[in-house]
Amino acid sequence: MLFLVGAGLSEGGLTEEALELLKRKQVKVYAEKYTGWFGERIPDLEDKLGKKVTMLERSGLEDNINSLVDQAKKDDVAVLVSGDPLVATTHKIACIEAKKADVKVKVIHASSIVGSAIGESGLDFYRFGQVCTIPAWSEHYKPVSFYETVEKNLANNLHSVLLLDYDPKVGSIQPSYAADLLLQAEKRYKKGVIKPSTRLIVLHNLSLDGEQKLILTVEATKTLRMGQGPTIMILPAKMSEVEKESTAAMLGV
Amino acid sequence: MLFLVGAGLSEGGLTEEALELLKRKQVKVYAEKYTGWFGERIPDLEDKLGKKVTMLERSGLEDNINSLVDQAKKDDVAVLVSGDPLVATTHKIACIEAKKADVKVKVIHASSIVGSAIGESGLDFYRFGQVCTIPAWSEHYKPVSFYETVEKNLANNLHSVLLLDYDPKVGSIQPSYAADLLLQAEKRYKKGVIKPSTRLIVLHNLSLDGEQKLILTVEATKTLRMGQGPTIMILPAKMSEVEKESTAAMLGV
Repeated sequence: MLFLVGAGLSEGGLTEEALELLKRKQVKVYAEKYTGWFGERIPDLEDKLGKKVTMLERSGLEDNINSLVDQAKKDDVAVLVSGDPLVATTHKIACIEAKKADVKVKVIHASSIVGSAIGESGLDFYRFGQVCTIPAWSEHYKPVSFYETVEKNLANNLHSVLLLDYDPKVGSIQPSYAADLLLQAEKRYKKGVIKPSTRLIVLHNLSLDGEQKLILTVEATKTLRMGQGPTIMILPAKMSEVEKESTAAMLGV
Repeated sequence: MLFLVGAGLSEGGLTEEALELLKRKQVKVYAEKYTGWFGERIPDLEDKLGKKVTMLERSGLEDNINSLVDQAKKDDVAVLVSGDPLVATTHKIACIEAKKADVKVKVIHASSIVGSAIGESGLDFYRFGQVCTIPAWSEHYKPVSFYETVEKNLANNLHSVLLLDYDPKVGSIQPSYAADLLLQAEKRYKKGVIKPSTRLIVLHNLSLDGEQKLILTVEATKTLRMGQGPTIMILPAKMSEVEKESTAAMLGV
């Protein structure tokens, strides 16, 4: 059997159900390297579980699906993933491959960064539109489709979660860079969606040491740099009165 | 200090961080009655924590915010809520009131039903639009705004999460009833958004005993009845090839 186990956002984020499973003697535990809080805490985790945790090298689960599914035909195999499983396409592909091989899959859920960010922003859960990603640009590939998502969301008076492109070795792209890309996208589309005065909520290291929650303009975000931990941004639509109060309370402003 | 503690979706859904906090001798623990898996498991939870857990009667946190915030001025007070905190407006109001009273708040996140439902559906996380609720109708109040949300989502080729109105004493409204309201809304709007052949994903008792995951037409849902546990539905937009495979694997069809 194959278990996809959510590790949540911080060291204490494993659920009781997850811990019970991972501690079972016959369960072999793997963890995706570079992603999630456990990347650097494997020795602590091994102590806690009383067993070896094997790191999945290279791109983690993705490159190892077939061998893991193969092993799960006879053994109980648990793969620890960051946040909540099944958000990443890779996890779904693991389920598809397992099904093809007639291997059962069980998912153990945990808190996810998007869910936590929405909650911590103080904004109304029911007023979020489609999520989008601000990807790092390369010399020949400068995607701006996030602009269209934000535009549609704002047209429907909906808030937008902006995921920041994440490189496991360096962390999220900097808010300063993301703000610059938002403004560059505006220059390309010229629809007035992003202004220097547009407000952003920036959430860094949620549930981790050094958690930071800020609300500031795109202009001010242009100089905002954070540490290596995960960062996520929200571009709010027009806030209701309750949302204004709630955001102020949640962000401590 | 006031702690809002997510209980997750099932008895094993408390995180290590949450359990550590709740077990601390000086922390007074309250729980919202009628909501969440812990409603009926309080004696087990008390055994596990080695202390009394006080049920919040009537509408739970909502009617008790002021007295809890007042108590949190001098004591450590933890309130156990279903799923992930801060999704419900009540939790945000508690944060606002705490801030007014100069009481610090800490939130401990857990898995939420919406996040889990999106993952378990096999659909692409990035292709979900605004969430909506199908509310129970009364003689004089028959809201159909969910239809407009689904319409907008489908126009943008986005999936819709349909929350089913929840009465703590009887559970979610039945899928059969929700399907009927979808069709009645169609009769009112006549825009061809909901057809008898429109497919729905129905997720019942996620992460609990008796978990059920189905994909079926609105017509077939008209006769679908579930037990008292939480039920949530998803109305998918046009699925990609990977989504079709993934949904088939996740739903076991």
